[in-house]
Amino acid sequence: MTAEEIQTLICAGVPMAKDIGFTIQAAGSGYARAKVPFNQRMVRPGGTLSGPTQMALADAAMYAAILATLGKVEMAVTSNLSINFLQKPEPMDLVAEATVLKMGRRLAFCEVRLLSGEPGEELLVAHVTGSYALPGRPKA
Amino acid sequence: MTAEEIQTLICAGVPMAKDIGFTIQAAGSGYARAKVPFNQRMVRPGGTLSGPTQMALADAAMYAAILATLGKVEMAVTSNLSINFLQKPEPMDLVAEATVLKMGRRLAFCEVRLLSGEPGEELLVAHVTGSYALPGRPKA
Amino acid sequence: MTAEEIQTLICAGVPMAKDIGFTIQAAGSGYARAKVPFNQRMVRPGGTLSGPTQMALADAAMYAAILATLGKVEMAVTSNLSINFLQKPEPMDLVAEATVLKMGRRLAFCEVRLLSGEPGEELLVAHVTGSYALPGRPKA
Amino acid sequence: MTAEEIQTLICAGVPMAKDIGFTIQAAGSGYARAKVPFNQRMVRPGGTLSGPTQMALADAAMYAAILATLGKVEMAVTSNLSINFLQKPEPMDLVAEATVLKMGRRLAFCEVRLLSGEPGEELLVAHVTGSYALPGRPKA
Repeated sequence: MTAEEIQTLICAGVPMAKDIGFTIQAAGSGYARAKVPFNQRMVRPGGTLSGPTQMALADAAMYAAILATLGKVEMAVTSNLSINFLQKPEPMDLVAEATVLKMGRRLAFCEVRLLSGEPGEELLVAHVTGSYALPGRPKA
Repeated sequence: MTAEEIQTLICAGVPMAKDIGFTIQAAGSGYARAKVPFNQRMVRPGGTLSGPTQMALADAAMYAAILATLGKVEMAVTSNLSINFLQKPEPMDLVAEATVLKMGRRLAFCEVRLLSGEPGEELLVAHVTGSYALPGRPKA
Repeated sequence: MTAEEIQTLICAGVPMAKDIGFTIQAAGSGYARAKVPFNQRMVRPGGTLSGPTQMALADAAMYAAILATLGKVEMAVTSNLSINFLQKPEPMDLVAEATVLKMGRRLAFCEVRLLSGEPGEELLVAHVTGSYALPGRPKA
Repeated sequence: MTAEEIQTLICAGVPMAKDIGFTIQAAGSGYARAKVPFNQRMVRPGGTLSGPTQMALADAAMYAAILATLGKVEMAVTSNLSINFLQKPEPMDLVAEATVLKMGRRLAFCEVRLLSGEPGEELLVAHVTGSYALPGRPKA
């Protein structure tokens, strides 16, 4: 699937992804790069993107990386997501870089790094790991 | 703080909480019970509340339990949230029961159970643990 | 399986469980209660049971709860374990109470509470969640 | 601290680290590389290093990376460790590569990758994240 097809599929399936302005910038086998624009509506006191917005971005980026690897997977569902918030994001766009660390038959395990800042000076804002249950692919 | 005061504070600070219709049903020292109503806009394919909605509910419920325990805490921030999705929620209201398992000077650790179903027949939909960094309370 | 059979199986399979003196006190469908005795060899500076000892106890207690629920499961393996250390354990025996929160066909999800202290005055020393991958049980 | 000093400190403090033959191969600001040799005593059915051995290695490698970054830190303690087991390790030495992703005043957050296999052909056996509570360093 192309980045555009993945974005359309995710925004159709998860209205919250659409609400936060989720877009995919790049995707290929084993990875995806996604973004949410800075938006006053998503801030929490202190002027930064809220935790739930960061979690929604990370979850959608993982899903994008899996779709980019496997093609359209019906009913792949998140089974675990663990996020560590490390820094307040800057009041600017937030980028997610998702990597598939294991693609098993029944489970995909991913890592996501949420980055904030000008290109070349990004801060690691949050670190995320997650597992997706896959609908029993056939043995290779 | 009362349940009503906590709800007002959270919805003012986190627009996403307001967007999903977050309400607090009960809160006291060490716990909070919160709810999001079922809403067609939050569903994902299959007709259930999306993962990000569940994470937003759990995060807000933890924060409510901390506020109910300590009173107004400036700048308490989530440092870790880990969620395990166990069952698809029913297409109905989703309830979060948050418990403070440790209240340290610098860190609060909470557990949240997300429950779906008619009273007395609730299913455990997701299990969440989370840590909040506290702004250095004085020693007791 | 009885508590004694489970203990024998675990100590045969995981030498570290035997090394730390792991014993099962009770087990039944959906739960297990296990213990490691206090032992000077396992302490870390400060006189408490080390983190790895606590993790080994929690992992074995989860496995015991699964065996007590399903009977002998060949090659069930831990897929995730997440531990939060909340208090230093007392210099005494450490107890683990493991509960199965979801028993799916392919995955079991458990919670473990590590407790230290005299009966009736136990402190919650650590909170653990974990997933075990199961070898594809038949549909019920 | 040098790799050798760190190894001596860790093995003195955590007997289990010594028991599993924990050694540090390299350490510097922000990282450490550590190893446990293959040992029949640590295997579980199937012939691979047990989960508790992997957790003990990861925990010690994180601690080593923190010591290599800060110098001797009295009473730094693990507050959270989350491990995802991805592959069975080969019946050979297991290597841990620990990286400090955030060094705050009160909390250090690390990632550890456990690798098994011949140099250049390592498999990612497990992925670990962890937090260490630090004893309130002075503001810079």
